[in-house]
Amino acid sequence: MRFLHTADWHIGRRLHGYDLTDEQQAAFQQIEQLALTEKVDGVIIAGDLYDRSMPAESSVAQLNQMLQQLNLVDKLPIYAISGNHDSAIRLATGTPWFKSTRFYMHTKLAQAFQPIELPDTQVFLLPYFEPFDAQQYFNDDQLQHLDQAFVPIVKKMVSLFDPAKKHLLVSHFFVDGSSTTDSETQLKVGGLAAVPVGLLESFDYVALGHLHGKDALHAPNARYSGSPVKFSLSEANQKKGVFIVDTDPFNLTFRPLTPIRDVQQLTEDFATLIDPHFYKALNLDNYFGITLNDRQPIPNAMPRLRDIYPHIISLDRANGYDTEIEDSGESGDQIRQKDPMDLLGDFYRQVAKDDLSPQQIKWAKEALKIANDGGKRS
Amino acid sequence: MRFLHTADWHIGRRLHGYDLTDEQQAAFQQIEQLALTEKVDGVIIAGDLYDRSMPAESSVAQLNQMLQQLNLVDKLPIYAISGNHDSAIRLATGTPWFKSTRFYMHTKLAQAFQPIELPDTQVFLLPYFEPFDAQQYFNDDQLQHLDQAFVPIVKKMVSLFDPAKKHLLVSHFFVDGSSTTDSETQLKVGGLAAVPVGLLESFDYVALGHLHGKDALHAPNARYSGSPVKFSLSEANQKKGVFIVDTDPFNLTFRPLTPIRDVQQLTEDFATLIDPHFYKALNLDNYFGITLNDRQPIPNAMPRLRDIYPHIISLDRANGYDTEIEDSGESGDQIRQKDPMDLLGDFYRQVAKDDLSPQQIKWAKEALKIANDGGKRS
Repeated sequence: MRFLHTADWHIGRRLHGYDLTDEQQAAFQQIEQLALTEKVDGVIIAGDLYDRSMPAESSVAQLNQMLQQLNLVDKLPIYAISGNHDSAIRLATGTPWFKSTRFYMHTKLAQAFQPIELPDTQVFLLPYFEPFDAQQYFNDDQLQHLDQAFVPIVKKMVSLFDPAKKHLLVSHFFVDGSSTTDSETQLKVGGLAAVPVGLLESFDYVALGHLHGKDALHAPNARYSGSPVKFSLSEANQKKGVFIVDTDPFNLTFRPLTPIRDVQQLTEDFATLIDPHFYKALNLDNYFGITLNDRQPIPNAMPRLRDIYPHIISLDRANGYDTEIEDSGESGDQIRQKDPMDLLGDFYRQVAKDDLSPQQIKWAKEALKIANDGGKRS
Repeated sequence: MRFLHTADWHIGRRLHGYDLTDEQQAAFQQIEQLALTEKVDGVIIAGDLYDRSMPAESSVAQLNQMLQQLNLVDKLPIYAISGNHDSAIRLATGTPWFKSTRFYMHTKLAQAFQPIELPDTQVFLLPYFEPFDAQQYFNDDQLQHLDQAFVPIVKKMVSLFDPAKKHLLVSHFFVDGSSTTDSETQLKVGGLAAVPVGLLESFDYVALGHLHGKDALHAPNARYSGSPVKFSLSEANQKKGVFIVDTDPFNLTFRPLTPIRDVQQLTEDFATLIDPHFYKALNLDNYFGITLNDRQPIPNAMPRLRDIYPHIISLDRANGYDTEIEDSGESGDQIRQKDPMDLLGDFYRQVAKDDLSPQQIKWAKEALKIANDGGKRS
């Protein structure tokens, strides 16, 4: 059988204040088209459908429309679970009815042991859970950590295996360790709450959600699909997309998605950034994280860059600021007795390496007059 | 056909801070039993299923369970609409799937013109809407008020009438005016946003939600079912329940619900309230609004009443307080020169008609000492 594996849609998420609704909608439409053209037998969504446990109405409307489109219009089966960002209770609304059109949304640990029986495949949908849920379910308060809880969970699933079928697991958590046969990416992911990848070896494929990069784990039988959209500058170099998973023979194909606006990091001198020869080669509509190599003050840097790059999501310095102020040799008492306009002129010269312009002097004098008049404007 | 008409469940509502979850669950179970024993062809819920547009997780879990029980376990059709307390968008989650088991939940104005076609009845489900929605739908910005909007709405519904069938409307709004042939209750309900009852005469029955008393309107063909639970002291004298509606021949039967704890108003002297001969005749587990006839101060009135009536939701005075302070004849200057302990003793005597006890004097002296020492406790 053939599945499309996606996860971490995070509907409602914003990128440094920018609304991502259109970006997420565009990614969804590509996922939908891929599912149709690849003629998949179902779409796997491995958790974190929403960005928040209490999503805004606009997010609810958007996700509802997406799921209706896939399942009711396109007639695609959906295999979904709740992630740690979702409210399992809210996401459970309507789920008993969804099954009638092969839309399976599991939100409770107990449902992980009710595999979806397909002609040649069993699909186990294990939603995000806390160790406490496992303690309750197995009546065993020794299950303090996720890796401990996974032992009886996998054991119970294996006991339900139909040996004539392939076995798929859909889950949402940190997996510790990656295949040592994969030289391309040797990532160790997660920490305390991580589950050893070895615990997952009973499954033909484990469709994971939680980490947003498709390369977070390279195990022979387990992958994160990653999010369909870049959600932070740290994801600038990630390639976003979905996996097309064939179960027999097993085959994994990554299919990239094209963003409306990519997220891009620029580390350059200011002079380069405002040089048309440089920026005309870029898609200026992208989201840019800009890091300046310059150390000196640059007046109005942000507005000047925004004129060229309208969607700047961060601006910082690679080498810090040139903040050395030359010692004028004057004492505190001497400085305090200087004319305020002279003081301002000295300060501006030190910081901006330039004299105040006649217009700046006029503004400063007006401001000083207002201050001396007790704040009253004429 | 036979329907059960209920409305205004307001799941998540509290009564003066008291959780009503158990009360609402008990009312639901009686509604469910009535629907089963009366063998109704469907349950009508005329809006305000939730108390808030953003219900708590516990409320979502409770309502989801109720609707699943009625529709999926008891196999009862449900005819429901969103009310002004509901988020139409959130309540729409899953609704396209619900129809497969004859659970109809309409949340958009456009859905009002898609009647549910039963063998001998058309059910029009008109959710709560704002005049703006009607302006958009009919492309007519003259529809400024609800009564104006109702004219084209009813006209469009009537154009869809199958003359061989009965016509039911389920709606959630204020209806202005009641039948003049009904001498029992002549209530005029609502204000600016009210809809004249005459506009509803085309329907065989209008199952209304919004007002919490079943007697808010006595029209020949339109009723409020009222809420299944008392939500305020002003509803103390209302009888809560549901209507059983037969369409052919038309018949309306009110079926009361029994609360776990009733809401009751007591207006009595304090001495009566604490007299066992009085209170032993009451169900002390009820919620009580208590109004004292007494005018004089009663020390620790609330804790003393709570010992007898554990669920007091309000305590006030019918005749105000006896606050006359006798004029001692002393001038302001004279009073300011008095010893603070003497002043306190005078004040206590005037308000409480009693002398300070030795223990009270001890506490007051200690407090004065701390105040005189600049607030430092020894």
